[in-house]
Amino acid sequence: MKTFFPNIPEKLPFEGPGSKNPLAYKYYNPTQMVGEKTMAEHMRFAVAYWHTFRASGQDPFGAPTFVRPWVKADSPMEQAEYTVRAAFEFAQKLGVSFYCFHDRDLAPEGETFAESCANLEKMVEKAKQLQQDTGIKLLWGTANLFGHPRYAHVAATNPDAHIFAHAAAQVKHAIAATKELGGVNYVFWGGREGYETLLNTDMKREQEQMARFFHMAVDYAKQIGFDGQFLIEPKPKEPTKHQYDFDAATILEFLRAYDLFDHFKLNIEANHATLAGHSFEHDLTVASINGKLGSIDANVGDPLLGWDTDQFPTDPAMCALAMLVVLKQGGLGKGGLNFDAKPRRGSFDEIDLFYAHISGMDTFARGLLAAHQIIEDGVLDNFIKERYASYTDGIGKQIMGGQETFESLEQYVLQEDDPAFKSGRQEMLESILHSYL
Amino acid sequence: MKTFFPNIPEKLPFEGPGSKNPLAYKYYNPTQMVGEKTMAEHMRFAVAYWHTFRASGQDPFGAPTFVRPWVKADSPMEQAEYTVRAAFEFAQKLGVSFYCFHDRDLAPEGETFAESCANLEKMVEKAKQLQQDTGIKLLWGTANLFGHPRYAHVAATNPDAHIFAHAAAQVKHAIAATKELGGVNYVFWGGREGYETLLNTDMKREQEQMARFFHMAVDYAKQIGFDGQFLIEPKPKEPTKHQYDFDAATILEFLRAYDLFDHFKLNIEANHATLAGHSFEHDLTVASINGKLGSIDANVGDPLLGWDTDQFPTDPAMCALAMLVVLKQGGLGKGGLNFDAKPRRGSFDEIDLFYAHISGMDTFARGLLAAHQIIEDGVLDNFIKERYASYTDGIGKQIMGGQETFESLEQYVLQEDDPAFKSGRQEMLESILHSYL
Amino acid sequence: MKTFFPNIPEKLPFEGPGSKNPLAYKYYNPTQMVGEKTMAEHMRFAVAYWHTFRASGQDPFGAPTFVRPWVKADSPMEQAEYTVRAAFEFAQKLGVSFYCFHDRDLAPEGETFAESCANLEKMVEKAKQLQQDTGIKLLWGTANLFGHPRYAHVAATNPDAHIFAHAAAQVKHAIAATKELGGVNYVFWGGREGYETLLNTDMKREQEQMARFFHMAVDYAKQIGFDGQFLIEPKPKEPTKHQYDFDAATILEFLRAYDLFDHFKLNIEANHATLAGHSFEHDLTVASINGKLGSIDANVGDPLLGWDTDQFPTDPAMCALAMLVVLKQGGLGKGGLNFDAKPRRGSFDEIDLFYAHISGMDTFARGLLAAHQIIEDGVLDNFIKERYASYTDGIGKQIMGGQETFESLEQYVLQEDDPAFKSGRQEMLESILHSYL
Amino acid sequence: MKTFFPNIPEKLPFEGPGSKNPLAYKYYNPTQMVGEKTMAEHMRFAVAYWHTFRASGQDPFGAPTFVRPWVKADSPMEQAEYTVRAAFEFAQKLGVSFYCFHDRDLAPEGETFAESCANLEKMVEKAKQLQQDTGIKLLWGTANLFGHPRYAHVAATNPDAHIFAHAAAQVKHAIAATKELGGVNYVFWGGREGYETLLNTDMKREQEQMARFFHMAVDYAKQIGFDGQFLIEPKPKEPTKHQYDFDAATILEFLRAYDLFDHFKLNIEANHATLAGHSFEHDLTVASINGKLGSIDANVGDPLLGWDTDQFPTDPAMCALAMLVVLKQGGLGKGGLNFDAKPRRGSFDEIDLFYAHISGMDTFARGLLAAHQIIEDGVLDNFIKERYASYTDGIGKQIMGGQETFESLEQYVLQEDDPAFKSGRQEMLESILHSYL
Repeated sequence: MKTFFPNIPEKLPFEGPGSKNPLAYKYYNPTQMVGEKTMAEHMRFAVAYWHTFRASGQDPFGAPTFVRPWVKADSPMEQAEYTVRAAFEFAQKLGVSFYCFHDRDLAPEGETFAESCANLEKMVEKAKQLQQDTGIKLLWGTANLFGHPRYAHVAATNPDAHIFAHAAAQVKHAIAATKELGGVNYVFWGGREGYETLLNTDMKREQEQMARFFHMAVDYAKQIGFDGQFLIEPKPKEPTKHQYDFDAATILEFLRAYDLFDHFKLNIEANHATLAGHSFEHDLTVASINGKLGSIDANVGDPLLGWDTDQFPTDPAMCALAMLVVLKQGGLGKGGLNFDAKPRRGSFDEIDLFYAHISGMDTFARGLLAAHQIIEDGVLDNFIKERYASYTDGIGKQIMGGQETFESLEQYVLQEDDPAFKSGRQEMLESILHSYL
Repeated sequence: MKTFFPNIPEKLPFEGPGSKNPLAYKYYNPTQMVGEKTMAEHMRFAVAYWHTFRASGQDPFGAPTFVRPWVKADSPMEQAEYTVRAAFEFAQKLGVSFYCFHDRDLAPEGETFAESCANLEKMVEKAKQLQQDTGIKLLWGTANLFGHPRYAHVAATNPDAHIFAHAAAQVKHAIAATKELGGVNYVFWGGREGYETLLNTDMKREQEQMARFFHMAVDYAKQIGFDGQFLIEPKPKEPTKHQYDFDAATILEFLRAYDLFDHFKLNIEANHATLAGHSFEHDLTVASINGKLGSIDANVGDPLLGWDTDQFPTDPAMCALAMLVVLKQGGLGKGGLNFDAKPRRGSFDEIDLFYAHISGMDTFARGLLAAHQIIEDGVLDNFIKERYASYTDGIGKQIMGGQETFESLEQYVLQEDDPAFKSGRQEMLESILHSYL
Repeated sequence: MKTFFPNIPEKLPFEGPGSKNPLAYKYYNPTQMVGEKTMAEHMRFAVAYWHTFRASGQDPFGAPTFVRPWVKADSPMEQAEYTVRAAFEFAQKLGVSFYCFHDRDLAPEGETFAESCANLEKMVEKAKQLQQDTGIKLLWGTANLFGHPRYAHVAATNPDAHIFAHAAAQVKHAIAATKELGGVNYVFWGGREGYETLLNTDMKREQEQMARFFHMAVDYAKQIGFDGQFLIEPKPKEPTKHQYDFDAATILEFLRAYDLFDHFKLNIEANHATLAGHSFEHDLTVASINGKLGSIDANVGDPLLGWDTDQFPTDPAMCALAMLVVLKQGGLGKGGLNFDAKPRRGSFDEIDLFYAHISGMDTFARGLLAAHQIIEDGVLDNFIKERYASYTDGIGKQIMGGQETFESLEQYVLQEDDPAFKSGRQEMLESILHSYL
Repeated sequence: MKTFFPNIPEKLPFEGPGSKNPLAYKYYNPTQMVGEKTMAEHMRFAVAYWHTFRASGQDPFGAPTFVRPWVKADSPMEQAEYTVRAAFEFAQKLGVSFYCFHDRDLAPEGETFAESCANLEKMVEKAKQLQQDTGIKLLWGTANLFGHPRYAHVAATNPDAHIFAHAAAQVKHAIAATKELGGVNYVFWGGREGYETLLNTDMKREQEQMARFFHMAVDYAKQIGFDGQFLIEPKPKEPTKHQYDFDAATILEFLRAYDLFDHFKLNIEANHATLAGHSFEHDLTVASINGKLGSIDANVGDPLLGWDTDQFPTDPAMCALAMLVVLKQGGLGKGGLNFDAKPRRGSFDEIDLFYAHISGMDTFARGLLAAHQIIEDGVLDNFIKERYASYTDGIGKQIMGGQETFESLEQYVLQEDDPAFKSGRQEMLESILHSYL
């Protein structure tokens, strides 16, 4: 059977930090124990079907630049088959155990909705077989509710109920496909859900539509016995001017307002957090302290560009801060680190896909090692514990216990000397963080 | 008695759009009826004590530039007295019925907390007398929990419980002062509440502290019988790197999570919305559709600058969009339009304060007139009504009524023809909006 | 012969500000005199071939949404013919006298370079005939050096000399086509000229390549007797991370450094200026005071989005500030106002193209009227003249005349009293500006 | 004699990467050879007088928080004396050989200009003595033309010639002071030079004023025999809306336009580059390839905040990219790395100043080591050399040699096959860069 990456060895080796081999890992050693888990278990890396196998290098100013061997086919379905085979070959050679997809990545849109569904079912069978052959698993599935022109005015928040219905029917099949493939999560990325201008928009109504859509999804999953985790992925804008799933806090607000809080966790993407004006670790933390950090889209944006560049991470410090959040909550559970990232448009070759993933995985491996050691050494935790010590005793404990009032605290202030000013030691802590990298 | 604006007439006139008199209103005519209310009743303009009377023109790179006659005094308390007299003279001549203040604007910080409280009480008596003399009222009071070095690591979210207590005691007096002056709202602007770095921060704990603080405030208001509206004002950053009251949605999330939803509304500021990546009308709408738009800080930022420039509004279209939200919710109720805005540092003179306010008030008056007429003509409302018509009947009505499922909608889709694509007509609607200005 | 806009009247009427007809001009009255020129002569509006006739509504997340009647054809050349006929019909009905194109807008890329050239020549003949039939003229032509994959690593600054040669050959034909069509300008929009990462880039060498390319273009124009104005269009980024033609100042620097200053002017685009961190009027002014403002791409971005949204202008104040610069330099000469703007992706219909252009043209007409009256009344000019009066006499005149030194000025300072501080009156001036709108 | 940092050892030790001592260097070892120079010679670190000794922790929303022992004095001049002694003690203990100052950092503004000059002269004597005692040298001096209210409408570009004269007189003394102290550079940071609104600004005139000012400075330096390097420091905005020294390219344009090119180099600051929308290495490269990289302000901004945060660098990759530019141009010559950076407002203590500088110096040391090794190994240089190889021979060589025209290149294109597409290998190169860190 045809191979799509003939010049890549069966499995990329780990050669350690000294290696100059661009096709070897310098830090990511899947079987290496870090605490009580292997690196692979900690990070649960996934390859993103859309960027890695379906992207063409097209951008708003230019035509496709990537000429992948798996797109040369006599029909869309043949192309889909080549693609899925390329995907599993890639993941195997890379040494990654998971993948993620949108329904329309895996199988082409048909002439009719029924044909689209049939295409998807056929491709699910192919993927299922390849999963069995290789041991590679589905981290999550999702539905593409943004590519087709019918979704130009969005899917669940569309002013046309007919299109809402279309989105519902499509997600039904995407969830079913995810279940069939043993996917442990299902992601809702609103894509375009939002508005271009308030001049033509009834925001309240659209929010209610979105809530109704999510309730239907919950009901459907229950009915078919899908027990994967539902995840919503925040993004503030792009392509739409304003997107309703702006950031972690906005989604949590929506879930609370519409009685959906128990049914969803979040899939946090680095580049989406920064587009919303937050650091990656900020949105991870907001999700985590609310018990809602479900999975991560591992990428990075360019801080000087105002759109989602979806680059592979290269900064170990960013990854260390992310892994600190993950380790402190006891891991990602069913979730993983999905590389929602793409090589630049001028990185034409298949080998660039390998270089890019190696770079991202090595970077996260460095971050994991640093985060683990920082926690082992307790350097940050002890500092924080001491910093808030006044709340574990005395007046602070009473405040948090609900035993104080504005009046009692006024009495306290009038009796005490002025409080001491304690440095936050930001510069020392930054220096310590970097000493672990 | 000394007058502080000797060259300004007793009351600035309305002269209409043709006037070239820079000290006359061209659009703001307080007694003009717009629908069933006067312009003054619709907008309830307020002067901000801090920018207009206390600002010095100091910026991070330079010393004060404004030399106000009311700061020349022999003691801080004498200066405070001159200032309050200047404030009421200014508001009267401008023809504005409300003002807003922080506790430390009105009265100077003393050597001790007790002295600060005594100073505040004395100045509240002065202000009360001036309110009676002039008929000018307090729109809202608030406490400055960000200026003093004790709040460098913030107030309610301070890692030191002693400083939490200090903030509590200070807010107690600020609420009491607001009540004494008949203030109809009390604003919480978190100021610095947030963090500089997550390396030294326990975000979950800090959120719990903030919730505790707000519950105490609710209890205190109840106890003393303060029935003004509590308002929280979002701001995403500046001076702090990340502020917890990021935007309207984030605050609503917090209020829901900590059982505070019924006790607070929001005070939305234009420049804070844009710093958070939202348009002014976006954050107004988010607040309004949740029943939480309480009051407005009327200003504007420079879209090319990354900090809060607090400029007076000059764009009638922006104000029309804001007033559309206000009119649709039936007005601001107890709230108003507070000019949280300042002349540029090089606008040295007292007369620049008048020019600036006139500019802002005329701009909002143009916005009000346009918004009112747009609603009267129904142009936007009818368009929106028709756009979502599919939800008022048939499948759309059943979806929103909870009578459909993913499966029933799939059956619907399979039976129906493809949905039609309807233009959102953004460009036509923008053109219509501007034809009213 | 087939008409492409059957429901649009032969020529859109001017109906004045009171009109509610969305297909009528409210402010743009082409024959109305404003000073010594008609509105049409002042603004020289042009339609952009690429956005208006070639755009599909595709965006990075979704497929084409516009289904234009002129794209339904049996071959690319037939499609090109329908398109050019649609373009002239559109411009005539809109009442606009100019258009602008890229070579690949007008004629499709062929299998070979020779075929591409032949296609272009054929379409130039068609366009020439239509120009004669309608009186509509070519404001400028340009070459698309960014769409084809060969230009992924850019054109003139490509590391491969073969691709430099390709770009040179293509621009040769584009200039020749522009000459053939009587185009009065030729625009260089670098498109991708710049870099994605400095890790693989020799910036100095690439700048030298770009300079060489421009010198060749100057030589070629001279040789064939093309006397149109060469224009360079700044853009800081997108699609490329960093583009060499960052803003007006950067291009002027480049032109001076490489002995090209006399041969080029600038084509300033509003949305490109704001992406570079400047206001539109800033970059217009930088170009103008250097004698280099040649033409304008009339559009606007969304200040809250970080990419080029290319929207039609709706803010009369922005247009007034732009037209102030234009009027002060005595008009645009050979240049014009080209609508490098597109309807939103969800504005599916051909009629939206008309709504959008009407909106843009009316907005600029309001700006022109205001700018003209402001200059007539002298309000801003007199203020500025007085503000700098100290340089027209005495010490200021001597300074600018080169008669003073640091030492003589020290003596002056020591003898004089402290300088007075004069307000810049920004708020008053803003108010005056808006009183003209 | 009083010591200001009693708990800090005489000289901070180098202890290597394994050290947990927050008061030791882990990477910066001043005497370690890197190539043919020591680390100290490569980097020529300087302490910034303003941030380190004069900053108070004040910000736009809050009062000073730092209580430095050297500010407790009976008079401004006594305070100045304590401060200069603290400065030299700090630099010695830190192990840094240079410092930088503004005139008003070193000595207080007096009642009159003459008194200000006298104050400066006295303090220059003190500093000169301390330089002799310690061997610490002046990297550069500058004048503060932005703090005093007289400069609210700027200095050299002030509409009042009297204030231009004041600025001239002040810079005269600042240059003289720099000469007296053996300073090897003199920096012009425009500070506020620019405009708040074009409504009151004559940009052309202001540029001419600025040019005149610089010519006078050149003349003055020549006259007194100051042979230090003149440097201009770009910054795009803050405090002023638009600053004329926007970025490196803008300054080069200005220097070329006004016949000043030979007399100035640039002082590039990381945080100013990023505020202008550029990466640090971008603006360093622009300066360097024009032979104009004179010195560096070593700091970093927060990419999510829109103002100059002036933080100490913590990212070794950023410093490696910077040092690559420096090493490739053969070092900084007279220039150095000046820490124009400050601890956060809540880092109250003197010891935080040490932590912060150690962090910055260690980060740059890591960058230097990586950059040196990358150059030694030739990994990037060889890649780039090969990437542009087509210009060293054949058609590329002829293009750059001026032997080709658009026509000859068309013939070339018609004869040759299509060019091959070569990947830019960005991801591989990023991975290689990080493998050196």
